[in-house]
Amino acid sequence: MKTKAIFYHAGCPVCISAEQQVVEALDKNRYEIEIIHVGEDKAKISAAEQAGVKSVPALLLGGNIFHINFGASLDDVKGG
Amino acid sequence: MKTKAIFYHAGCPVCISAEQQVVEALDKNRYEIEIIHVGEDKAKISAAEQAGVKSVPALLLGGNIFHINFGASLDDVKGG
Repeated sequence: MKTKAIFYHAGCPVCISAEQQVVEALDKNRYEIEIIHVGEDKAKISAAEQAGVKSVPALLLGGNIFHINFGASLDDVKGG
Repeated sequence: MKTKAIFYHAGCPVCISAEQQVVEALDKNRYEIEIIHVGEDKAKISAAEQAGVKSVPALLLGGNIFHINFGASLDDVKGG
């Protein structure tokens, strides 16, 4: 059974770079990867906050959130 | 031929978490992973700086540096 990995982003250039390189490098035989664009649906922002996301891009892996560089804070995404 | 991935860390708890989860999740069939402990050898700090590392843990992938969460700045590592 694959481990779930969730990549949260908001379409920003830093997000796209992280998606194209870090997410792309994950082992898809072991990880089931879900991509969530928090800017497209406000309901996804609160779900991301509950998961511990403070800024995007961020990767949820093994129950922990890993913030990768800094594209935008969730507050910025809410305001945008 | 595998793509080179370099993980820079300083043994901090945030670093260890990133190593055990993010680095562990990389596809080892496609990436050749090198782990560099910048705290063990001061010469490695300047090499990391030249690669664009500002803080650890950080992952060099496809020529770009991805800072993962925040464990310590390279300046802290220098002073430590």
